[in-house]
Formats: sequence, structure tokens, C-alpha cells
Amino acid sequence: MQQMYCGQSTVMPCCCGVDVHAHVIPGEFPKYLGGATPSGWPSMAPADACHRHVMIDGKNYRTVSDKCWTPSHRLADFQEMGLQLQAISPMPELLSYWLSPADGSQLVRFLNEQIASMVNESGGKIVGLGAVPLQDLTLAIKELHYIKHTLGLCGVEVGSNINGVVIGDPKLDPFFEACVALDMPVFVHALRPVGMDRLVGPAPLQQVLAYPTDVGLAAASVLTGNLMHRYPKLRIAFSHGGGTLAMLLPRLQQAMSVFPALRESVHSSPFEQVRALYFDTLVFDTQTLRHLVHTFGSSQLMIGTDYPFNFHDKHPVERIKEAGFDAQVTEQLTSTNAKRFLGIENMNLE
Amino acid sequence: MQQMYCGQSTVMPCCCGVDVHAHVIPGEFPKYLGGATPSGWPSMAPADACHRHVMIDGKNYRTVSDKCWTPSHRLADFQEMGLQLQAISPMPELLSYWLSPADGSQLVRFLNEQIASMVNESGGKIVGLGAVPLQDLTLAIKELHYIKHTLGLCGVEVGSNINGVVIGDPKLDPFFEACVALDMPVFVHALRPVGMDRLVGPAPLQQVLAYPTDVGLAAASVLTGNLMHRYPKLRIAFSHGGGTLAMLLPRLQQAMSVFPALRESVHSSPFEQVRALYFDTLVFDTQTLRHLVHTFGSSQLMIGTDYPFNFHDKHPVERIKEAGFDAQVTEQLTSTNAKRFLGIENMNLE
Repeated sequence: MQQMYCGQSTVMPCCCGVDVHAHVIPGEFPKYLGGATPSGWPSMAPADACHRHVMIDGKNYRTVSDKCWTPSHRLADFQEMGLQLQAISPMPELLSYWLSPADGSQLVRFLNEQIASMVNESGGKIVGLGAVPLQDLTLAIKELHYIKHTLGLCGVEVGSNINGVVIGDPKLDPFFEACVALDMPVFVHALRPVGMDRLVGPAPLQQVLAYPTDVGLAAASVLTGNLMHRYPKLRIAFSHGGGTLAMLLPRLQQAMSVFPALRESVHSSPFEQVRALYFDTLVFDTQTLRHLVHTFGSSQLMIGTDYPFNFHDKHPVERIKEAGFDAQVTEQLTSTNAKRFLGIENMNLE
Repeated sequence: MQQMYCGQSTVMPCCCGVDVHAHVIPGEFPKYLGGATPSGWPSMAPADACHRHVMIDGKNYRTVSDKCWTPSHRLADFQEMGLQLQAISPMPELLSYWLSPADGSQLVRFLNEQIASMVNESGGKIVGLGAVPLQDLTLAIKELHYIKHTLGLCGVEVGSNINGVVIGDPKLDPFFEACVALDMPVFVHALRPVGMDRLVGPAPLQQVLAYPTDVGLAAASVLTGNLMHRYPKLRIAFSHGGGTLAMLLPRLQQAMSVFPALRESVHSSPFEQVRALYFDTLVFDTQTLRHLVHTFGSSQLMIGTDYPFNFHDKHPVERIKEAGFDAQVTEQLTSTNAKRFLGIENMNLE
């Protein structure tokens, strides 16, 4: 894999990776345009020179670095991470499905404009996955058109559930139909997860344990709900290596031979269906990554880092190399699959 | 691995396997001793010559075969399954933590007597994991003494949560302290799981997807709650291969280096801690089984089948053999680990 490295060093990876899972927070939020600010409307409070506090309902939701909103600071990390391109999407809590449709639309429109601005500043190193107000399907589809045609974003981020409606629920079909019609890939990120009442320990366990739990169930719902049968051209990806899906999948497969009700309702083998879905590599463990490649297929995994949050993968390309795949699989995971998912195979990348 | 086979056939496995995950339902339930029968009190209704319906609150909870309560019918399947011994435990819904403590005690006492009777009829081929009314810790510990000293059962089955209190919650410490004092191993089975509102499809998805989800979170709660630090001699096992735990674990491990709050509250590495827990092999997939051996350690996995329910593993020993482990690991998974977990290393098994 000599071609993976810059000539001058065998340690520094060449910047060949494409990261589909990285987040944006704007440096400031707009004031609410209306009467009393609704619950859930975010604002920024100063922290130190490089950080700010995202404040929601008077509480510090998260302290974040200026890499969230400053493309040049973000790009400065690309070489060490081995990246040539990053797809950026909102911090999931900002998807704001719990706001009224009008308020949610106002907020995500602001986020989308910010993302487009960062893409434009990046010199072709950043592409954007926008947000849509999925609490109202009509408004969501309208925003999908806007982020595609007016802002030129290349895809959309959605939560693993929309106010409790899991992403594989057929209620969301009109949205997915629009994604296919507009050729917009969908990146599914954990959000407001189930399992919070099963955690014993400090608050970060929400991200650590409940996030992958919700993503795993969301991906399973896409399989049992036959989403890819209705929209075979849909490109849909799941964060955090699909969360817990890899452990649910063989049991689901076996269940098809046991329960007539499942055979009647699930139109094809989960083992086959899963190979039409995409997943990021964000599992922090090479043995687990190898297991995912075996389970989901080498054509379906792409770098995800959760950059620039604290809990991000600093060396995603190195981690893929450490797993010992052959050159073709390494290239698939590092960049080819992501470009196909994002629909940018023909983009001129340096 | 020639020693794994009987002389007369290379297809029929020798009966060397020890199954720690198999269930009991009594052929009849007692009438409620009191006034109006409380919600959740089970009864049996006839189905056909070999089956009955478990009725709960007027609905058919599950139709089950007489193998649930007839030791001779159960033993007749041992040869094909490759088993020499089976540890039987109540169908989890019968743990009845939602009944009043007095009612729950009455029901589980009946179950425990039934289990003891089946053990006694089995000619040393069946051992028992009893039930205790964990909705009341004092009564639970009292029943634990009874099943150990009066009935001679070798361990106890508990739910992954007790009316929503996850098994790693320190509230349950007095129970685990008693388990250690009495040298009684604990088998944790999925029960009334989280994630039901994330399922798209028919009712069996509760067992298929939500069960492993709840078990995974339960096992994670034991790690983050430091249960094994407080009770290092505790032997505790998780059903369904630990459910989703294998996908949660590397993320939890990584999180320790990211979140100070986790480093302060979790006393040692999750990767190390997990190797003190036991898991069954009930994952229906050899690649996944190999991944679990890598993740949890070859000393921690034991056959689990969910016999005699429809969704059981009919060839657990063959499945271990198919995974291609060496002779030592095959023997560990097939029998040695289970005997150590059950505390029956010195039991005279034919």
C-alpha cells in the first residue's frame, strides 16, 4: 500500500481519506424571530478563545471548539487525519425536530446556509449534508429541494428517529421518495435515543451506549420495513458503524426461518438487504471493523470520524490500514465507497 | 476433534455439550390463592396433544410444547443436540416482577418446585436455575436460600431489568452479595425490553431485536456500574451472546480515554472487565461467534439454546465446531466454561 503514503514519510498518511461523518455548529445562532424564544432554541455563550458553549434551555449542552465553524481550522487537521475531503453535517441535536415546523424550518435554514458558506470557503475540501425539518414532511421536502438546487449541498443528515418515529417507519416514505428523485444520499445519525433508563453512570453514556443502540434499531427498522425494496436507488448510511446492528443481524436472519409473520412481512433476506446500506467505520477497534466488513460488505463502509467533537477518531485512515485489508478493500473504505455514497465520483479532488 | 464424536458416526455429535440457556414452563399453573386473580397471573389452555397455550391476562402469550414440562421428552432431544447436560430456567415472562411481592413469591415458589422436580426426574441430565421475586430484595434473598438449600438448584435466573431497574444498578447489590455468599451463579435473560417503539414489523421482533438490545445494555450497566469490582467472586452470565454488548464495548473502551467523568466512575478498563463476565453462544452465526470469542475471551462463552422454544438453536455443538476453533477452545465453549459457571466441575456426568 505504498501509494497510500506521501513520498517523504512512511508515518504521515497521504491525504486520501473521505470522511462522511463530521459535524458543524455555527459560531452564532440567530435570535428567534418571533415572540418568546421556544424551548430547544439554541444560543452560543463564550468559553475561551477557541471554544464556545452551546446553550439549550439555559443549560450548557456541549462546549465546542471553533473548528466547528471555521473551515481553515478544520482543514488544518486534514493532513494528520489523512483526509482529502470531509462531508459536514449539523450536530444532531440541532436537527430540532421537536420545534414547531415553522421554527424548525427557520433554524435548519440557517444551519444549511452556514454549511453552504463553509463548503464555499473550503476550496473543494468540504461538501455538505444539510438538515430538513422532518417534523413536517412537506416542509422537509421543500428544504431538500432548496439545499440541493439553491445551496448545492450533496446530501442530507437525518436522525435515527423523528420524535420517536424510527427512520424505517413507512410514514417517512414521501421524504425518501424525494431523496431518490433528487439523488440526495441520506446520512442517519443517532438522536435522542432509547435506552436512557438502562444507563448506570455519567451523562456521556448517552453518546457512548444509547446512541449506537438507537442507530442499530433504526438500521434494523429499514430492513424489517423493506425501505430498500420500495426505494432501491436510495443511498442511506448509518453512523457509528451501524451501532448495534451487526449483533442484531444474524438473529434477525435466523428469525426469518422461524417466524411465519416475519417471512410474510420482510421481503428478502436481511443478510442480503444489509448489503444495500452504507455504514461509517466509527467503531474504534480494528477487529470490530473487520467484523463489519465481513458482515456488511467491503463496498458499504466509509470513514466516519465525528470530528471535531472530543469523542472523534483522530486517525481514521491509519485505523483502516491497521485492520490489514488488501489494497482494494483499503481503498474502498478509505475513499471509493464514500464518493459513491455522496455521488461525487466525478468531483475533481486534489 | 475426533473425541467430539461417538464412534459409530461422524455426523452425530457425542453428547458432550452443556447448555446453560433452556427454559421451563410448568404443565399447569396453580390457581391464585386469594381474591381476584391479579393481572399477569398465568394459566394454561389446551392446544393439541403436545402443546398448550400460556394465557396471560386472557391472551395467548405463547403456544409451547410439552418439552417445556416433560423431562423425558426433553432428554430425547439431547443426542441430536449433542448435549450431556442442560440448565433449565423459567420462561422469562414468568419471573413476574410486576406482581406484588407476595403474589410474585407464590408464583416463583411454584416454578422453583417444578424445576426441582424436573431435575430430580432427569437422572442427572438437568440442573436448575431458579427464580426469585426481585421486586422485593428481602424476599428474593429468602427464596435464594430456599432454592439452594432446600431444592438444591445450582443457580438463579434474573431479568435484564427488574421493572425498569437495569441489572447493573447498585440498588440490587444486596441480592448479588447473597449470590456470592451462597455461591449461586446468575443467568441474566432479556425481559420486557427497551426499544419496542423502534420496531417496524410483527410482534416477534420483540424477541428478535429488542431482547438483545436490552441484554446488551444490561451487560454494559454491569461494566459501568462496577458490579464485578464490588463482587469479584460473582459468576454472572448474559443471554443471547450478550446481545448488543460486543458492538457497544469498543466504543465504551474508547470513551474512557475521552470523558473524565467516565474515567472517574468506571474503575477499570471495560475490555478487561468484560472478561470476568460469562455469555452464551446463542447468536446463530459462526463468524459472530468467532468475534465474541475474540472480544470476550474463550473462557467466557458457553452453549445457550433457548430450547425448547421455536426460536432455539438445534445444533449448538455443531455450530461451535463449524467456527473452526482449536480443540481446547471447542471444549471450553462446549462444556468446560459452563461447568465452571454452574459450579458443577465435580458433578459426575456420564
